[in-house]
Amino acid sequence: MDARINLERLRSDLEDLAKIGRDPQGGISRPSFSRADLEARDWLRKRFADAGLTLREDGAGNIFGRMEGEGAVVMTGSHIDSVLHGGMFDGPAGVLAGLECLRVIQESGLPHRRPLEVVSFTDEEGNLTGDFLGSRAFTGTLDRDILEKGVTAFGHPLEEILKGTPYTLGGILSAGELRPEIEAFVELHIEQGPVLETEEKTIGIVDRIAGKNDWLGVFRGQAGHAGTTPFELRRDAFLGLADFALRATQYVAAEHYGSMLTVGRAALQPGAFSIVPGRVDFTLDFRSASKDSLRDMETHLPELARDIAATRGLEFSYSVADHTDPVLIPDRLTGMMKEICESEGWSHMTLPSGAGHDAQILAEVTDSSMIFIPTVDGISHAPEENILWDDLKTGADLLLQTLLKLAE
Amino acid sequence: MDARINLERLRSDLEDLAKIGRDPQGGISRPSFSRADLEARDWLRKRFADAGLTLREDGAGNIFGRMEGEGAVVMTGSHIDSVLHGGMFDGPAGVLAGLECLRVIQESGLPHRRPLEVVSFTDEEGNLTGDFLGSRAFTGTLDRDILEKGVTAFGHPLEEILKGTPYTLGGILSAGELRPEIEAFVELHIEQGPVLETEEKTIGIVDRIAGKNDWLGVFRGQAGHAGTTPFELRRDAFLGLADFALRATQYVAAEHYGSMLTVGRAALQPGAFSIVPGRVDFTLDFRSASKDSLRDMETHLPELARDIAATRGLEFSYSVADHTDPVLIPDRLTGMMKEICESEGWSHMTLPSGAGHDAQILAEVTDSSMIFIPTVDGISHAPEENILWDDLKTGADLLLQTLLKLAE
Repeated sequence: MDARINLERLRSDLEDLAKIGRDPQGGISRPSFSRADLEARDWLRKRFADAGLTLREDGAGNIFGRMEGEGAVVMTGSHIDSVLHGGMFDGPAGVLAGLECLRVIQESGLPHRRPLEVVSFTDEEGNLTGDFLGSRAFTGTLDRDILEKGVTAFGHPLEEILKGTPYTLGGILSAGELRPEIEAFVELHIEQGPVLETEEKTIGIVDRIAGKNDWLGVFRGQAGHAGTTPFELRRDAFLGLADFALRATQYVAAEHYGSMLTVGRAALQPGAFSIVPGRVDFTLDFRSASKDSLRDMETHLPELARDIAATRGLEFSYSVADHTDPVLIPDRLTGMMKEICESEGWSHMTLPSGAGHDAQILAEVTDSSMIFIPTVDGISHAPEENILWDDLKTGADLLLQTLLKLAE
Repeated sequence: MDARINLERLRSDLEDLAKIGRDPQGGISRPSFSRADLEARDWLRKRFADAGLTLREDGAGNIFGRMEGEGAVVMTGSHIDSVLHGGMFDGPAGVLAGLECLRVIQESGLPHRRPLEVVSFTDEEGNLTGDFLGSRAFTGTLDRDILEKGVTAFGHPLEEILKGTPYTLGGILSAGELRPEIEAFVELHIEQGPVLETEEKTIGIVDRIAGKNDWLGVFRGQAGHAGTTPFELRRDAFLGLADFALRATQYVAAEHYGSMLTVGRAALQPGAFSIVPGRVDFTLDFRSASKDSLRDMETHLPELARDIAATRGLEFSYSVADHTDPVLIPDRLTGMMKEICESEGWSHMTLPSGAGHDAQILAEVTDSSMIFIPTVDGISHAPEENILWDDLKTGADLLLQTLLKLAE
């Protein structure tokens, strides 16, 4: 097959979209339902329409561009929202590569039996009430409670943020009702890690996506004057967290190599030079592509935290902010992509995804798969996030051929 | 001597003042130059005037009440500002006990040769540009640079906060010009620690005041995706701080017993669930009553931090936000107080002060000393801060007799 995407057109789309939501403090800040996001949605709808695709949008703001066909739909896509001060590829590369594939199929009249759709899912980055709002709404796996009670990363309830938009809680919750039957989902995404670059491969065929736990943890002790409370009488919540962070990291590194654990945020109270912290709230993110490892961590980490708390005169508690299971990508999809890469002579490898993606949510309702392209220096979620354009071309060509094969 | 203070009157003063600046979130929030503080100043001026004292206020807002006499002045006092969500005794106990002493001397016509003054110093708690703004202005030891460039705990420069008040930077900087010759300074204060209570003593005669360093430290690493950055490639700034906090605490506890070290505040950047912290800014407070210990800590702690940074692929730097030297209280003052306690049969002990106080700033210009009274459960800087009223009576009676002896 010599179907090829047009890299110049795809690049120009990516560069156009990157102009929307530029943050004066650096990078791109385009969280879903922000002013920048609403502008980007207009831009995207126009691009889909210009490509001759039929527009559809569900109550969660997931935007679909469709080419008609028979039977279950072959779907591709990703997201156009970003973290604060993020980069221009995490998300948009997949949406706009999908658009480019459909554009090429359209204008070249490439044969496909099934309908084809490209989708942009809302709030993959979880700036609102946790990751994957859009794809969870689409697959009907959204937690109503979290949606209604959760406070967004901006400190306001979701309902308040929706006021400035055409979207509603009810609309989001019913977004899955119109879901078509899906033959397969394929998402192109930047790797966001160093593996492909280190291994000098152009294509990563994802075979597993890590499951994740996001916990909100608290160590509670007793505030005290930093000049008058002797060490032996202190109940310093911060030292409890320090001890936990170091020992939890050692445990994961030693017992579950390849799994990850991160303390990303910590708030010390009362938070002053001269006061021993009486309380610290923190985030704990831990992931594994292995279900067994994830289960072991879920058991061991609270035990470790309680042990440390007992030793240091503290109390420990936590709540689960988010949870996803690890996903195995079906062999028929990874096998199909490997075959294409081999027949085209594209360098490739299989690898797990440590980051979460809409594809893992889609796995609830269809065969779901991912194509990774290398990320320069493994940096993402940062203004410096970058790719090599030729890698994107190869990734998008692989996406094009995979979609055509699935739609035969 | 059977001069005695009137506890009912002193208690009623303390309870009146505690009504000003009550924080709906708990305790008392009365930082200097806040609306509550301006109201408290009016209240205090009226109390001084009602007691027949001559009012004086310098450019830094230090308020003096004076009884005339010959020669150098014998001075007592403390401060009426508070930390946020603080208690009602830290500061006011000393100012109002001093007022009560002068009131008793006035109305009973107790003999004194020297002038006597009670003072309330501005911003002892350092909510503005570091501790002891008022007493430093009064003693001429204020750092002009910090005053002009420093940002207050409220995030605004001092100059901006002064706009809503009758005070100016120039006035603060020239406050020391009118300083009278001072024979001695005596400050009554709550201990803010557990020692007197544990030892079952009513009076603490302070023999040393700890010196302190307040540092703003930074570990810089590299932000990275929590799901895709392997442990061995991470440069996690928070783990650097965790390691440092634990090892620095161990070092001080082992090598400089009785000295203190506290990490009270830490800000992780970017500060999200799924991002390895690339930077952490933190406060480091360390203190000692021993000049040698303080010097050793000043040398060793940055070495330790740099070692940890080197091991973990981080960079460490710090700046000094505040520094005070340890102060030795002159024997003539501690001896005088011990004699009074012994002749009166008051239980007492000498002890160092781990907390900083205006008295240590006054030591730059006069013989300076402190009387401690017990603090219930050692708790201060908190809404629960409390005392036993009888302890306050004994402390204030000791203050009265000490002032009379010094003013003979």
